[in-house]
Amino acid sequence: MSAIEDLTAELAKLPGIGRKTASRLTFFLLKQPPGAAESLAGAIQRVAERVNLCSTCGNFSEGDPCSICTDTRRDRGTVCVVEEASDIEAIERSAEFRGLYHVLGGHLSPLDGVGPDELRIDALRRRLENGSEVREVILATNPSMEGEVTATYLRGVLARAGLKVTRIALGLPIGGDLEYADRVTIARALAARTEMAE
Amino acid sequence: MSAIEDLTAELAKLPGIGRKTASRLTFFLLKQPPGAAESLAGAIQRVAERVNLCSTCGNFSEGDPCSICTDTRRDRGTVCVVEEASDIEAIERSAEFRGLYHVLGGHLSPLDGVGPDELRIDALRRRLENGSEVREVILATNPSMEGEVTATYLRGVLARAGLKVTRIALGLPIGGDLEYADRVTIARALAARTEMAE
Repeated sequence: MSAIEDLTAELAKLPGIGRKTASRLTFFLLKQPPGAAESLAGAIQRVAERVNLCSTCGNFSEGDPCSICTDTRRDRGTVCVVEEASDIEAIERSAEFRGLYHVLGGHLSPLDGVGPDELRIDALRRRLENGSEVREVILATNPSMEGEVTATYLRGVLARAGLKVTRIALGLPIGGDLEYADRVTIARALAARTEMAE
Repeated sequence: MSAIEDLTAELAKLPGIGRKTASRLTFFLLKQPPGAAESLAGAIQRVAERVNLCSTCGNFSEGDPCSICTDTRRDRGTVCVVEEASDIEAIERSAEFRGLYHVLGGHLSPLDGVGPDELRIDALRRRLENGSEVREVILATNPSMEGEVTATYLRGVLARAGLKVTRIALGLPIGGDLEYADRVTIARALAARTEMAE
């Protein structure tokens, strides 16, 4: 396989990029000034080499713990639970939240074989054990069927004296995806969060 | 800038990829199994290192001359003139053409400062000089205003005894772009090409 066909095939593996778009991107890169394609290749390589999961919160990070977990200006009494690391970026853009995060790595989905053991729920429980300074857990799983089920499940297992468990307000449209919500909607949903009944 | 932000910025430079899509692609790559991102980075790097312009036809190629120019099974008497190297791939997909190619590198566009000297027209004329085995030049510039102007200009300067100059049939929709045409339309347009009056 030639280098051009090889790159087109690699690009076509990306989500939302079909064969024609992959071919167009390949020729775009070929027509760039020297260094442009190398710069993109280098950026991908660096992400692959340097970025790992934060062992505390599960966020993608170049250090461990990540820059959010080690930020002393953030409120260590609040942990926002999200499905994916990409959701953190969306919430950070809203500038409404100054606490810490916990990435589950997905949502409960029995039909796909994703039960509680497949998510980072044990790690979350360890963060909340006696002696922890966490006072509130905000459940910010997606406003979808699976996200709701996951939030309800977590509400059931995250019991501890003095711990408040809240659900991000459903100002987000049901059936949507948190990652693509606009920042105003996210900010409003965070501000209007409500406590979950046990 | 972090490795993640850096890659997102690099991806957002690609055509048709905005900030949100770039961020989504970055997280997609982060979630892939080990080796997947390196594989894409390597493919980009190899294209940048190995692919150059064929000094004969102007196509992107890993060798010089390119694999089409050196293919002895192809008809060396016919040269198809296209605006961009990416158009060659589109024409090859139609499986209608077995001759050689010549890439202009664009179209005439005086308002953008693109005159005959900015295109690979001199190189084309040298390929057609006395003693050349080329009997026919097919002008397959885009079916747009600029492509038509470029074809008309070329018709004027490509005069030689015994040389036929044809224009790809305008079964292609005017205002479109050859690169995105479907293979059936391209095959029909090639088959129905007509000789240009001087």
